[in-house]
Amino acid sequence: MTHEPAAHASGSDDRYTRGLAALRLVTGGEHNPVLGPVAETAPDLARFTVEFGYGDIWSQPGLTPRQRQIGTIAALAALGNAAPQLRFHIAGALNVGCTRREIVETFIHTSVYAGFPAALNALAAAREVFTARGDGDEGGEGGEGDTAIAEEPAGGDRYARGLDLLRAVDGPAGPAVVDSLAGIAPDLGRYLVEYVFGDVYARTGLDLRTRELATIAMCTALGTAGPQLRVHLRAFLHVGGTREEIVTLLTQLSGYAGFPAALNAVTAAREIFAEQDAAGNAAE
Amino acid sequence: MTHEPAAHASGSDDRYTRGLAALRLVTGGEHNPVLGPVAETAPDLARFTVEFGYGDIWSQPGLTPRQRQIGTIAALAALGNAAPQLRFHIAGALNVGCTRREIVETFIHTSVYAGFPAALNALAAAREVFTARGDGDEGGEGGEGDTAIAEEPAGGDRYARGLDLLRAVDGPAGPAVVDSLAGIAPDLGRYLVEYVFGDVYARTGLDLRTRELATIAMCTALGTAGPQLRVHLRAFLHVGGTREEIVTLLTQLSGYAGFPAALNAVTAAREIFAEQDAAGNAAE
Amino acid sequence: MTHEPAAHASGSDDRYTRGLAALRLVTGGEHNPVLGPVAETAPDLARFTVEFGYGDIWSQPGLTPRQRQIGTIAALAALGNAAPQLRFHIAGALNVGCTRREIVETFIHTSVYAGFPAALNALAAAREVFTARGDGDEGGEGGEGDTAIAEEPAGGDRYARGLDLLRAVDGPAGPAVVDSLAGIAPDLGRYLVEYVFGDVYARTGLDLRTRELATIAMCTALGTAGPQLRVHLRAFLHVGGTREEIVTLLTQLSGYAGFPAALNAVTAAREIFAEQDAAGNAAE
Repeated sequence: MTHEPAAHASGSDDRYTRGLAALRLVTGGEHNPVLGPVAETAPDLARFTVEFGYGDIWSQPGLTPRQRQIGTIAALAALGNAAPQLRFHIAGALNVGCTRREIVETFIHTSVYAGFPAALNALAAAREVFTARGDGDEGGEGGEGDTAIAEEPAGGDRYARGLDLLRAVDGPAGPAVVDSLAGIAPDLGRYLVEYVFGDVYARTGLDLRTRELATIAMCTALGTAGPQLRVHLRAFLHVGGTREEIVTLLTQLSGYAGFPAALNAVTAAREIFAEQDAAGNAAE
Repeated sequence: MTHEPAAHASGSDDRYTRGLAALRLVTGGEHNPVLGPVAETAPDLARFTVEFGYGDIWSQPGLTPRQRQIGTIAALAALGNAAPQLRFHIAGALNVGCTRREIVETFIHTSVYAGFPAALNALAAAREVFTARGDGDEGGEGGEGDTAIAEEPAGGDRYARGLDLLRAVDGPAGPAVVDSLAGIAPDLGRYLVEYVFGDVYARTGLDLRTRELATIAMCTALGTAGPQLRVHLRAFLHVGGTREEIVTLLTQLSGYAGFPAALNAVTAAREIFAEQDAAGNAAE
Repeated sequence: MTHEPAAHASGSDDRYTRGLAALRLVTGGEHNPVLGPVAETAPDLARFTVEFGYGDIWSQPGLTPRQRQIGTIAALAALGNAAPQLRFHIAGALNVGCTRREIVETFIHTSVYAGFPAALNALAAAREVFTARGDGDEGGEGGEGDTAIAEEPAGGDRYARGLDLLRAVDGPAGPAVVDSLAGIAPDLGRYLVEYVFGDVYARTGLDLRTRELATIAMCTALGTAGPQLRVHLRAFLHVGGTREEIVTLLTQLSGYAGFPAALNAVTAAREIFAEQDAAGNAAE
């Protein structure tokens, strides 16, 4: 298996050309403001970024450009230490067709998995990008701004709404986590239902499948959320995501969070896929 | 257990009002400089910060405001990627009655768990906050400044002092760690005794219980220090901390380091509590 | 074992004096621009930095100053949240004799273990340091600049080259990882061969032993790459590194990534050393 390169391996020239084309999609045709100075000091790292980052991983089939950019900004928001790249990829998300609303929702979602500081700092980066583009008021772009966000559910029976959604997303594993917390940290269990699911997952600005994709990206990038990564790999498949999307996302994240993060998440995915195959065989 | 909201769940208006009151304690009555711009781009994230961050987790009984702020700045210092929030909560620590000395001591303690770069950068944030408040010289506030810090033990028999303290804090588990290092990395074991315990834990500017609370906060936020988290959950209980304080702290940290970090630390706490219950039952 | 201080423990004055001497090697004799302001707010933390950071860990035998600085900048690049310290230690690397080329190569290597954002930001820090030193053009210093870097292998049979190198570095464990990926994420396996080994490890600007030393430093600092840390502890020994170098490096990293990171990496090293001792005994 390791003795032959995969069939679609290709020469360096192809990869560079393909990478430049992908990069132009992300930059909206503009010169990449990040790579210019890199090329002066480390021309090969600039070349690797184009060849590997865009010619290889970004150009794989398996995810749409919008999915890629949501996954990337979720991962960078969770890492919390790559502000220039986060701004670059927020702009890239807009360039491939993500709405401001989807970007803001992704960072509201970040508050759950990486905490409010990470969410607030990512949102500050988004504000900078939105302002720099000067498309009128920040809430603009056809009703995807403040007004729409303010229409989200506020108050009401957050617990009941959260529990329904927890079941819909995670299946029986979700309420089981809450039950297991009842004996030791009942308020944390309540917040998981009320805040995470009743407030955040209930929002309409990002569909459930994209929320789960962003969750997998964040847990992979953090590298410290193994149990949660497993829960949300299952949840992503449960709400209609595919194995191909998972594998493509984790492969892409090798470039943003490093190969160890990607490889360890693939190990988790392998377990979940095998578990589901075994359950499928048992049911036949 | 999951079918009913907890008795003290409350409506959104109550949570917002309660959150604003808690936030005013932290800001010392001033307008929150962090949330203003957030409200323009993501008004719901600003609302969640008040409702969940302050109305829910900050308002729980179980920790004093000073304990909360020490735990928060310890976690943010260890994360190392949330400078605006760290400055905000250093000011908040002062506003709820922590002394400059306690804040500085917390960051000296940070050098042990997250390394000197994290400690030095947190201290730089503290210096900015102290300077901006302009309360005379930085060492001021009733003798809690440089002079007092200089009275700390320097030199002397650091190993003997460290070993005594290691035993007092960790019980037999502490010396066992040092012994286990003797065969492979004896100098690291020696530094653990001399630097960590002989220099840092021996300092008088922060009581042992608060040091352990800060340690738990840092290990939880890092998410990569599972064995050390378990050692220090035991140590916190050993020096007089309570299970309620632990659970309240971990619940609070869901807002600063994310739910996965909090949930994984609760799993560790559950193990330690069960271990101690079993030992207690065996002793009866 | 824990009852007696190690024979070479020494008094505070010696440690401070020794620390200052080591610090002067790193700063090239200049005043440390990081510690000055620290000393005003937390004089003891400044003292600990000299005594522990330089008098203890930096002054241990077991690693050359160049190895120390490569390990340190690799760890700080991977952490991604300590820009002032990263710049300080890049300058320190130059001061103890590392070339600009070696520093740039270390950060190209960082792209593999901590992702491209971490690599690009570390490189930006390097560029700042190189520019501030004003040694003519950035590619200067006796042919170690752009020209030499451009001589690196580009294109060609990256898969074959990568697979040969993967075997040379990791032994049979390397191809086994690629094989295990074939059934789930074959492209990630291909990129591991082509990009990580065919492009990056194949570069001549940093010898394999130093690459593996940097890899161990990054995996230790990240704290989330346990399986990869074990692979590369074996690989470092396999390409000629010693146990003493590993232990000295991990001990040094206690000061940069914290004691939990160092202790957990020592646990991994203990396993690898025992595994090799057992294999050695079995072979006799």
